[in-house]
Amino acid sequence: MSRFFSQKYEKLVPYTPGEQPKDMKYVKLNTNESPFPPSPIAQKYAKEAAENLQLYSDPECRDLVKKAAEYFGIEKDEIIFVNGSDDILNFAFMAFCDDKTPVAFPNISYGFYPVFAEFNGIPYEEIPLNEDFTINPEDYMGINKTIFIANPNAPTGIALPLETIEKIVKSNPDNVVVIDEAYVDFGAESAVSLVHKYENLLVTQTFSKSRSMAGARLGFGIGSKALIQDLNTVRYSTNPYNINRMTMAAGIGALEDNEYFKKNCEAIKANRAWTVAELEKLGFTVLPSCANFVFAKHAKIDGGEIYTTLKKMGILVRHFDKERLSDFNRITIGSMEQMETLISALKKITEGAE
Amino acid sequence: MSRFFSQKYEKLVPYTPGEQPKDMKYVKLNTNESPFPPSPIAQKYAKEAAENLQLYSDPECRDLVKKAAEYFGIEKDEIIFVNGSDDILNFAFMAFCDDKTPVAFPNISYGFYPVFAEFNGIPYEEIPLNEDFTINPEDYMGINKTIFIANPNAPTGIALPLETIEKIVKSNPDNVVVIDEAYVDFGAESAVSLVHKYENLLVTQTFSKSRSMAGARLGFGIGSKALIQDLNTVRYSTNPYNINRMTMAAGIGALEDNEYFKKNCEAIKANRAWTVAELEKLGFTVLPSCANFVFAKHAKIDGGEIYTTLKKMGILVRHFDKERLSDFNRITIGSMEQMETLISALKKITEGAE
Repeated sequence: MSRFFSQKYEKLVPYTPGEQPKDMKYVKLNTNESPFPPSPIAQKYAKEAAENLQLYSDPECRDLVKKAAEYFGIEKDEIIFVNGSDDILNFAFMAFCDDKTPVAFPNISYGFYPVFAEFNGIPYEEIPLNEDFTINPEDYMGINKTIFIANPNAPTGIALPLETIEKIVKSNPDNVVVIDEAYVDFGAESAVSLVHKYENLLVTQTFSKSRSMAGARLGFGIGSKALIQDLNTVRYSTNPYNINRMTMAAGIGALEDNEYFKKNCEAIKANRAWTVAELEKLGFTVLPSCANFVFAKHAKIDGGEIYTTLKKMGILVRHFDKERLSDFNRITIGSMEQMETLISALKKITEGAE
Repeated sequence: MSRFFSQKYEKLVPYTPGEQPKDMKYVKLNTNESPFPPSPIAQKYAKEAAENLQLYSDPECRDLVKKAAEYFGIEKDEIIFVNGSDDILNFAFMAFCDDKTPVAFPNISYGFYPVFAEFNGIPYEEIPLNEDFTINPEDYMGINKTIFIANPNAPTGIALPLETIEKIVKSNPDNVVVIDEAYVDFGAESAVSLVHKYENLLVTQTFSKSRSMAGARLGFGIGSKALIQDLNTVRYSTNPYNINRMTMAAGIGALEDNEYFKKNCEAIKANRAWTVAELEKLGFTVLPSCANFVFAKHAKIDGGEIYTTLKKMGILVRHFDKERLSDFNRITIGSMEQMETLISALKKITEGAE
């Protein structure tokens, strides 16, 4: 830290992204990336855009917004695009929370929520999950706080049904409820259908997972016009040109190629079903996942040990060395080939223990 | 504004980017873009990267950082890459200013500085330029404030010599001095050579202008390790994957193709010299510019009128309807063809007035 760093950040602990090692080629199942390349149409549009980078990108993202509004059946001023969904989450923390409006989110959820709260100086409450790692909806009814819920939740993969989400939104009419749907396309129900009904609902999604664009950085928020306007005020006060031309073009291509998107989501769901069955055969308990990852612990072998042994064998998964989580590993659902490699490695690891 | 918007932003007036009209094709001389496409190597690398967007970009930007460190003759931990240089400026406002450490910048400079200050709740002083639109260095000596100076300044284009910058940095040892060098490659002296000498100096630059990558969004800061570490703390607390794979790859390509970069900068300087001479023949006063734009006012015709008439003729320049600025227009230096179109339009406009 320099002696010039503002005191308000003195105790800040930044978020730690998943490892991106360069020492060797791993079977990378640690950051919930898609095993499939982006749609050929997305690639084509991005490549064309690469030829005209001398021109600024459109700060209003007009072409992409138009396409997405049609796709989701909403108005053009009910959506905002950002540089990856971390951006929209941070904007929502800034816009809809402050020292008078504290924030609440589950304790065990996306690890970035407490960092956003700390960074923006917002008081926050972390509400523990139930014993079985589900969210207790009653804990969120009429609590007078801005609420962030990941649905499906991470790293558990467990989803709440839409009617439960609606009850939470309805019971907090004076606070914004943010439903973070980064993983929604792999089996949960989206709350986008509710945005015309509740002015306090903000739904965030990303092109990173189901549309194979993690490396392009494209996230978005859908909500009432007034909420989107506020988020745009934040965007125009910090970084109006936050989306580059190539990503904007790729986003349009990804939305055009809906068949490819649906096919890939189905493949991940099938690979997940296979992986869960195999893991259970090997003595793992797997939480019921609606995401492109599973959260699994073994009856006899320590989570940290499994992580370390897999890494030595060239397979990266994500281990969180934290209370309630350290028995588990979060394993991204990749291609069948990757899943077979994983399962055969885990067979070796678990052989002695059985 | 929604009724949920945090009170702290109630009075916020966001930045207004230059027009990006879609109603017709303009000769676009309003946002200081390069008339040249990005380097063929940058394009090639970006296109290759578009094929692997399913994978996250490296949050540490290791390949790009390595290349840039070699290029600028600095250490790898003395540089940080960000999503366009607005991002690094905002980070510096957050990291190095607060209610106890106010900020100062020229009144008449990049219009985003007061927005960043307002947005982050930082008290700020705007120090007026001299009558001739130059910065008076004495105004910045030992002032006990974080300082932002654009060099060359915008929208004037006027640069301070490096020795003056050094005096300002030296006289404020307990405050960070940020030198915003967005336009430095078109004729001013960079302060990067001073970063090993002063731990309070942060130099920011961008690939938008001289490297034809406005649409890719790539900015960076160079400074002491401790300053860069602080800025990374901010980055890792808000948006660690802030640079996409395509832009990162294009950045490496742009740095590899130094010949192309130098050739384009020389072309802009030559076109600028021609344009200034022609403008003066038509009765314009042009401030001495070291940037890829000129700031010009006519002896007899109002700045707003020139802007409006040019727009009707299909030529966009930037007009600021503000005190001291409204007589002028900021005109981007483009290709010779664009400059000839501009001058012939201005001939028509000024004919009656002469």
